[in-house]
Amino acid sequence: MKTTCAGSPTGSASTSRDPETVPEFTIDLVSDTSTRPSKEMLAAMAAAPTGDEQRDEDPTTLALCEEVADYLGKEAALFLPSGTMCNLIAFLVHCRPGDEIICASNAHVFGSEGGGASAVAGTQFRTVETADGIFSGADVRAFSRPRRHRSPRSRLVSVEQTTNRGGGAVWPVETLAEVAAAAKEAGLIVHMDGARLPNAAIASGRPAAEHAATVDTVWIDFSKGLGCPVGGALAGPKDFIEAAWTWKHRLGGAMRQSGVLAAAARHALKHNLERLAEDHANAAALAAGIEDIPGLEIFPTVPQSNIFFLNVAGTGKTAPQIAARMAEEGLRLGVETPTRMRAVTHLDVDRPGIDLAIGIIRRAISG
Amino acid sequence: MKTTCAGSPTGSASTSRDPETVPEFTIDLVSDTSTRPSKEMLAAMAAAPTGDEQRDEDPTTLALCEEVADYLGKEAALFLPSGTMCNLIAFLVHCRPGDEIICASNAHVFGSEGGGASAVAGTQFRTVETADGIFSGADVRAFSRPRRHRSPRSRLVSVEQTTNRGGGAVWPVETLAEVAAAAKEAGLIVHMDGARLPNAAIASGRPAAEHAATVDTVWIDFSKGLGCPVGGALAGPKDFIEAAWTWKHRLGGAMRQSGVLAAAARHALKHNLERLAEDHANAAALAAGIEDIPGLEIFPTVPQSNIFFLNVAGTGKTAPQIAARMAEEGLRLGVETPTRMRAVTHLDVDRPGIDLAIGIIRRAISG
Amino acid sequence: MKTTCAGSPTGSASTSRDPETVPEFTIDLVSDTSTRPSKEMLAAMAAAPTGDEQRDEDPTTLALCEEVADYLGKEAALFLPSGTMCNLIAFLVHCRPGDEIICASNAHVFGSEGGGASAVAGTQFRTVETADGIFSGADVRAFSRPRRHRSPRSRLVSVEQTTNRGGGAVWPVETLAEVAAAAKEAGLIVHMDGARLPNAAIASGRPAAEHAATVDTVWIDFSKGLGCPVGGALAGPKDFIEAAWTWKHRLGGAMRQSGVLAAAARHALKHNLERLAEDHANAAALAAGIEDIPGLEIFPTVPQSNIFFLNVAGTGKTAPQIAARMAEEGLRLGVETPTRMRAVTHLDVDRPGIDLAIGIIRRAISG
Amino acid sequence: MKTTCAGSPTGSASTSRDPETVPEFTIDLVSDTSTRPSKEMLAAMAAAPTGDEQRDEDPTTLALCEEVADYLGKEAALFLPSGTMCNLIAFLVHCRPGDEIICASNAHVFGSEGGGASAVAGTQFRTVETADGIFSGADVRAFSRPRRHRSPRSRLVSVEQTTNRGGGAVWPVETLAEVAAAAKEAGLIVHMDGARLPNAAIASGRPAAEHAATVDTVWIDFSKGLGCPVGGALAGPKDFIEAAWTWKHRLGGAMRQSGVLAAAARHALKHNLERLAEDHANAAALAAGIEDIPGLEIFPTVPQSNIFFLNVAGTGKTAPQIAARMAEEGLRLGVETPTRMRAVTHLDVDRPGIDLAIGIIRRAISG
Repeated sequence: MKTTCAGSPTGSASTSRDPETVPEFTIDLVSDTSTRPSKEMLAAMAAAPTGDEQRDEDPTTLALCEEVADYLGKEAALFLPSGTMCNLIAFLVHCRPGDEIICASNAHVFGSEGGGASAVAGTQFRTVETADGIFSGADVRAFSRPRRHRSPRSRLVSVEQTTNRGGGAVWPVETLAEVAAAAKEAGLIVHMDGARLPNAAIASGRPAAEHAATVDTVWIDFSKGLGCPVGGALAGPKDFIEAAWTWKHRLGGAMRQSGVLAAAARHALKHNLERLAEDHANAAALAAGIEDIPGLEIFPTVPQSNIFFLNVAGTGKTAPQIAARMAEEGLRLGVETPTRMRAVTHLDVDRPGIDLAIGIIRRAISG
Repeated sequence: MKTTCAGSPTGSASTSRDPETVPEFTIDLVSDTSTRPSKEMLAAMAAAPTGDEQRDEDPTTLALCEEVADYLGKEAALFLPSGTMCNLIAFLVHCRPGDEIICASNAHVFGSEGGGASAVAGTQFRTVETADGIFSGADVRAFSRPRRHRSPRSRLVSVEQTTNRGGGAVWPVETLAEVAAAAKEAGLIVHMDGARLPNAAIASGRPAAEHAATVDTVWIDFSKGLGCPVGGALAGPKDFIEAAWTWKHRLGGAMRQSGVLAAAARHALKHNLERLAEDHANAAALAAGIEDIPGLEIFPTVPQSNIFFLNVAGTGKTAPQIAARMAEEGLRLGVETPTRMRAVTHLDVDRPGIDLAIGIIRRAISG
Repeated sequence: MKTTCAGSPTGSASTSRDPETVPEFTIDLVSDTSTRPSKEMLAAMAAAPTGDEQRDEDPTTLALCEEVADYLGKEAALFLPSGTMCNLIAFLVHCRPGDEIICASNAHVFGSEGGGASAVAGTQFRTVETADGIFSGADVRAFSRPRRHRSPRSRLVSVEQTTNRGGGAVWPVETLAEVAAAAKEAGLIVHMDGARLPNAAIASGRPAAEHAATVDTVWIDFSKGLGCPVGGALAGPKDFIEAAWTWKHRLGGAMRQSGVLAAAARHALKHNLERLAEDHANAAALAAGIEDIPGLEIFPTVPQSNIFFLNVAGTGKTAPQIAARMAEEGLRLGVETPTRMRAVTHLDVDRPGIDLAIGIIRRAISG
Repeated sequence: MKTTCAGSPTGSASTSRDPETVPEFTIDLVSDTSTRPSKEMLAAMAAAPTGDEQRDEDPTTLALCEEVADYLGKEAALFLPSGTMCNLIAFLVHCRPGDEIICASNAHVFGSEGGGASAVAGTQFRTVETADGIFSGADVRAFSRPRRHRSPRSRLVSVEQTTNRGGGAVWPVETLAEVAAAAKEAGLIVHMDGARLPNAAIASGRPAAEHAATVDTVWIDFSKGLGCPVGGALAGPKDFIEAAWTWKHRLGGAMRQSGVLAAAARHALKHNLERLAEDHANAAALAAGIEDIPGLEIFPTVPQSNIFFLNVAGTGKTAPQIAARMAEEGLRLGVETPTRMRAVTHLDVDRPGIDLAIGIIRRAISG
C-alpha cells in the first residue's frame, strides 16, 4: 500500500508540479472526479468514428447528444468540456447582464465556479440559506423581486441535483416540481446543475427525465460517477442549444474530434449508470462503519447518494491532521475546512476498499 | 470514392444533424482541423497515466506542459480545450475592461472567435488593414493611443503565426522582433496566436522558441497540423500561467483526466512536427498544379506554409458551384465567400491525394 | 392641502407620464431624496464660476472635491452624478471580474442598484443576513474565502452608513474599525457606501472623517439629507481617484459645467450638515407619536437617524390601503412591501408637518 | 486680455489641480463644450419646478423629454448626464455581448469614450476607414458578416452627425437613408450619435427629425453648441426607452431633481437652435481668414458646420508650440496631435472674437 505524499487537498493546482511528485492513493475518496477511464472505456474511445465537431461532422458526438437528449427528455443537447461550462453557458443564454439567479448558499455555481456567472454573464446570485442545498417554492416566492427599474431582474432559479455541498442530498421530484411551479408563476426560468443527476435518478428510483421534466435546461457530468475523463452535456429546447453553440465557440469550448471523449460518455451511459447503486451502498456502509467514532459527526447521518461529510470538531484532531494520518495508510478524503472532511464513493473503490477505509479512518481519528 | 453530401461549408454547426448524414470526403482540404487521430496516437492516449488535472495530479498533462514550455522557451504552460480559449484567457489575464488590442483586420481573434474578447474580457480591437495579416513596428506606433482618460487604453498587440486569413503567411522572426520592440516602447504587451506556429517554425527553419522569444505569451494548437483531436497549450511567465488557471476554471476549461488528450499532444510533439514540411510541399505542389487554370487566381502565389486561397471570380463559376462539383468526386475545399475558396494541406492528405485533387479542381472549374 | 394622485410608490418610473399628472404631497416622507433645492441654494448655483470639468477647468467642482476630501479625511475626491455611480466606480476600480464583495443582505448595492456591480464590474456579492444592516469582524472572517483557483476571489467588504434598509441604523465607529481590521487581515479592501454618512456623523457626534478613517474609499450623497438636486462625491487615495476618472468617462459620468451642481453641494456642506439633527429629532418624534397605534410595529423602535420602518401586518390594513388614505390628506410614506412602509424625514418637513403626519397616520391606520 | 496658463490640452483631467490655477482664455475655440450657461439660462434653471425624476416626478424633466421626442420625431426620450451615456445605453439595450457595431474609424464612440462599449456592453467595433467620418450603404453591406457560430454577430450601425473627428462634416439626409436601407436589409439596427445633430439640421436646412427619420435611436447633446452645462437626451421607441431606464439606474445616470438641468435644456431648445447658423458662419470666416497662411492646411477646406482642423505640419512649428504662442494672446484651439489642431466655434465667441482670433493665429504660426 504505497502513497507518496498528501497531495494538494485544496484542489488548487499550482503551475509547477513535477509530474514525478503526483500522489498515489490506494483508496481515494476525495471525489468521484478522480476516477480513471477503464480499459473498456479506453477501447471504446480508440474505436470511435470521429470528425470535426465544429462542422457538425463528429458522428460520435452527434450520437452522444441524441442519447443525452433522450436520457433527459429534452429536445437537444450539446457536448462541452466541463460541467462548469454547462452552467456558465446556460446562464449566458438565459440571462442578460444585471439579471439575478436564485440558488442555495452552498451551491456549486455560487462557491466553486470562480464567480464565472458574474464575471462572464454579468448576473448576480441571490442565495437561500439551506444546510442540505434544497429549498422550496416558498423560498422562490420570497426571493423573487417585483419588477422595478432599480432592482436586479429576477430571472432564473438554479437547482443542484444532487447537492454537492449539501452532502449529496437528493431533491425529491415533487420538490423540484413545486419549485418549478413557483418559478413559472414568477416568470422565472429553472436550470438544473445535474452534475450528479444520474446518482439522484438511481437513488430515487425515478428516471433522470422525470427529475428534469419541470426544469427548462439541465446537464449531466460524465467525469464524476460515470467515470469518464472529460466532459458534460447540456440539454434543453432546440433554440436554446442553438444559442448555446455560439457561446461554446466564444468561450473556447468548441473542440474538433471530440468523438474520442464522447465515446467514453456513450460507453458510460451504457455501462455505468445502474452501478451507481453500488457507490450509494458503499457510502452508506462507510458512514455506518464510522458513525460511532467518538467525537465524529456525520452529515447527513444516512447518506442519500455517494457523498457525506465528516465533522471532526469533536475528535480533538483537525482535519489536516487526520488527513495526514490517513495518507500514511493510502487513504484520502477531502479536507473542506479545518474541521470538516468529505467522503465520496465511486467506481474506483469497491466494498473491500470501503472496509479498509473504515479501519484507516478509525485509526486516524481515534488512534 | 464515396461522398454523401456537400457538408456544411459555413462551419456553422446545427443542432439536429442525424449522425448518419455526416459527409465523407476522400480528400478533405477544408482545414487541417479535420485530421483524425492515428492508430499510434490512439494507442498513446489509451496507455497514458492519468489523474485529476484540477488537483494537479494528471502526470501526462503535467509532462506535456513542461514540454510545451520548453518548446516555446517560456517558463510555464497550461493545457486548454481549444486555441480560442488560449487567446481568450491571454486577453483576460493581460487586459482589463476598456483596454484596446491591436491586431490585423483579418486576424482570427477579431473575426472568428465570436467577439469573445469584447464579450468576456471587455476589450476592444483596433485593426490594421493588411492583406497577408502581417504588420510593422510603424503600424504599432501609429495605432497606439496616448494615455487620456477618455481614450481606450492601448494595452496589447496580437500577432498570428502563421496568418490564417492572410493565406498562411509566415511572420519573419525579424518582423516579430521589430513589432515587439515598438510595442515595448509604447508599454504594450505582445501576445502570439500561434495556432500554426509549428508550421512557421518548419517553414522558416527557425525554432518555435525563436519566433516566440520576443512575445510575452504564446500558444500552439494540437488539433491543426499536429493531428490531435482536441486541445492547445498556452505558455508564458509563471505568474501569468498562475492567473490563467483561475480563468481556466471560470470559463469551464478545467477538465479531469485530461491526460488522455495530453497524451495525443505529447505523441504529436514527438512525431508530427518535422513532417509539417510535407504539408508545405503539398500545398506548393497543389498551387503549382492549378495556377494556370484560366480565371483562377491564387493567393499567395507561392504558398508559404500549408494554406492558400483560390479567387474564382474570374472563372465564370461561383465557389459553391465549384464546391458542389468537387464534392461529386470526393474533394472538399473551404468556401470562404461566393468568390473565394481555401485549401489547407495536412497529414491526412498525401502526395497522391494532392495529384488527384489537382485533376478534380481542374475539372470542377474548367469542365 | 391638495394632492393630485397617489404617485408611483414603487419608484419605477414609466416613460410616458404627462408632466401635469405629477403628484403633489403636502408632507412627503417617502424619501429624503425628494427635497427640492432652496432659494439660497439656487442662488449659489447661479452665481458659481464654471468651466469644463472634463478639462479640469471647473473651479467650483474642483473646490468641492477638495472640501469633500477634507470632510472625509481622504486624499482626493471625484464628483459624480449619483451615489449609484460612486459605488459602481469604486467596485470597478478595486475589483476585477470574478471578485467577491461581502455586504449585508439588505444592502443598497445588492438590492437597489440594478445588479450593476455584477453587470458592469463582473463581481459577485456574498451577503451577510442581518436585520439592521450591520455585521461584525467575525462575519467578515466567516465570509472570506481561502484562495483557490475555483473559488471567487474575496476582495472587498462594503458597509453602508447609515443602513437604509436596516432602518437607518448607525454603524458605531468601533464596529467599522473591527470590520476593517478583519478585512485587512484577510487582504480585503473596505468601501463605505456613505449615502447618509453625514446623518451618521451628526447622530453619533463623531466627525465623518472618523467614520471613514478605517475604510479605503467612501462617498457621500448630496441629493439626500443635504438637499441638493443632483450628485455625490467619491473619495479615496489619489491613485484610486485617478483610476476612477477613467471610469467616470467610460460610464458617461463626465459632465461639463458641473459647477452648477457642485455649487449646490458646497452650499449644503456649509449650511445643511448640522441641521440633520432636526431630521433625526423629527423621526424620533414621529415614531414616538405613532408607536401606540394598535397592531403597528416600528423598526427600529427608537430611530437612530432619519429613517424607520412601519410594519402594518397587525393593523388589519395593507400598506397600499393605508397609503391611499394618507394620500387623501396629503401625506406620503414609502410602500416597501404589502405589509411594510418606510418614513424618512428631511429638510422639507418641519416639526408642525410631523405633528400633522402623526394625526394623518393614526386616522389612516385606525380610522 | 488675460490668461494664466496653457491648460491641459489633452483633455486628461488630473485629480489634484488647485482651483486657482484654472486657465482663462479670452477666446476659447478648444470645443463647443466650453460654453458657460448664460444669465437667462441660469434664471430658467432657478425657476424650474422640480421633483424626484427617479419617481417620474420631475415635471421639467418630463416636459423636456416630450420636447426632445417631438424634435427628433421619436416616441419617447430619456434625459441623461452625458452624451457618452446616451451612446453606451443605446448599445446596451440594442446589443448583447459578442455583437458587432459598424462605425467610422474616427468615430467618437470608438476612440473617445474609453472603450466603454466593449467594457460595459461587451460589443466589438468594426471600423470603416473614412476621412470625413461618412460611409455608404455599400460599406455597410461589405462590413456585415454572414451569420456563423464563430463570427461576431453583426448587429448595429452607428453614425455620427456631425462627424467630430471628420471635421464637422454633415451626413446628407439621403446618405443616412441609404445606410439605413442597407442596414435593414442586413437585419441591423441604426443608431445616431447626434451630439451635434442640431448643427447638422441648421447647416443642411432640414429638420433634425428628417435626419433622424431612418435611424432607430438618436440623441442630442445639450452641453455642446446649445450652451447648457450638463446633459443629453436619448430618443427612440417607447419600449427602447423603457429598457434604457433600467440601464440609467444601473450605470448611475438616474438623478433626482434633474429639472434644474432640464430647464437649461428647455431654454436652449427655445433660444439656441437657430443661432447655430452664426457659429457656422464664424467657422467659415475663421477658416477663410487663415487659409492663406503658408504651410497651413485646413480640413475641410470649407467648414460644413462649426468644426474644422488645422494641419500645421508644413508650418515649421509644432501644434504645441503654436498653442503656447496663442495662449499668450488669450486664444485656445485644440491640440489633437503634434501636427494637428482643431477649431470649434460656439455661442461664447462672436464675430469680433473671430476677427481677433484670425490675427492671433497668423502671428502664432507665421510670427
